[in-house]
Amino acid sequence: MVSSMNGYDANKDDLQKRLRRIEGQVRGIARMVDEDEYCIDILTQVSAVTKALQAVSLGLMEDHLGHCVVDAARESHEAGDAKVREAADAIARLVRS
Amino acid sequence: MVSSMNGYDANKDDLQKRLRRIEGQVRGIARMVDEDEYCIDILTQVSAVTKALQAVSLGLMEDHLGHCVVDAARESHEAGDAKVREAADAIARLVRS
Amino acid sequence: MVSSMNGYDANKDDLQKRLRRIEGQVRGIARMVDEDEYCIDILTQVSAVTKALQAVSLGLMEDHLGHCVVDAARESHEAGDAKVREAADAIARLVRS
Amino acid sequence: MVSSMNGYDANKDDLQKRLRRIEGQVRGIARMVDEDEYCIDILTQVSAVTKALQAVSLGLMEDHLGHCVVDAARESHEAGDAKVREAADAIARLVRS
Repeated sequence: MVSSMNGYDANKDDLQKRLRRIEGQVRGIARMVDEDEYCIDILTQVSAVTKALQAVSLGLMEDHLGHCVVDAARESHEAGDAKVREAADAIARLVRS
Repeated sequence: MVSSMNGYDANKDDLQKRLRRIEGQVRGIARMVDEDEYCIDILTQVSAVTKALQAVSLGLMEDHLGHCVVDAARESHEAGDAKVREAADAIARLVRS
Repeated sequence: MVSSMNGYDANKDDLQKRLRRIEGQVRGIARMVDEDEYCIDILTQVSAVTKALQAVSLGLMEDHLGHCVVDAARESHEAGDAKVREAADAIARLVRS
Repeated sequence: MVSSMNGYDANKDDLQKRLRRIEGQVRGIARMVDEDEYCIDILTQVSAVTKALQAVSLGLMEDHLGHCVVDAARESHEAGDAKVREAADAIARLVRS
């Protein structure tokens, strides 16, 4: 698959910015543990990072549906069905994670 | 939208069977509460029903993507975009519930 | 275990009321399927029921921690540890469902 | 609160190791985006990180219940109730994230 076919192409900078922020948040949690901060405060931060990751997933999924799945659906029934199947599996992983 | 356009049409009997089973499971939980069963056993049952409802949602979402969204994508860019937007919002509700 | 030891004893009526409402909501979803309502509207209702079940779980868990776990902790270290272990497993099931 | 009262004290090294691994995984996802990898492969990795963070939360919560909540329950009814209330709120954030 060539890069121009990825659903997230137009949002790549925003995506990288979000991931860098999440990386920093995880580092911040490690620092909280290091400084013996209170369990509940650490849990609150972990929940915030989990939510930020979910927002990344939801954005990626919307881009994927709007580009890869829609393009495949226009190409052929078989291509569309395969992409829908694959997207549905990814949604299931997302819901269960 | 006419009824024949619903993504779940082909799976309607299976869907109704699952929903009746879930309804019975909820009634079973009420009976457990009535009979003063142990909190953890009730919690286990509630988790099982939540999982069953998620399976219903994931099935509905796959049918919806494979029919409503794919059909709209073939119809026009505008129709496809609108359906993708709507599906993405439903996926977000699903992930957050 | 005698009934008076259940964490949810004081909230039994409220719990039963919530479960009856959830049972009615599941029946409502089956009716929506029967009447060929739009996939996304059905998905919205399933998400609402999932949220209502989660609220039931969270209420049960708080009652369980505040009664069964706290009582066991006051009884002995072994009893407390066993109840904490059991509650942690139930929280994991809840988070993953 | 002095550091010796934190529930995670005994697991601090393991916790730090997990957080460093998660930080590396997030950096790996940013690299995947940089190299234009396929949306679904990126989504799979994001789900894996979300699961790893949930495991961190569940471990922290078990430690917190087994130490902070249990200790408070032994100290007084008021202290126990306050800690249970606080833990229940954190569990709710965890379930909803």
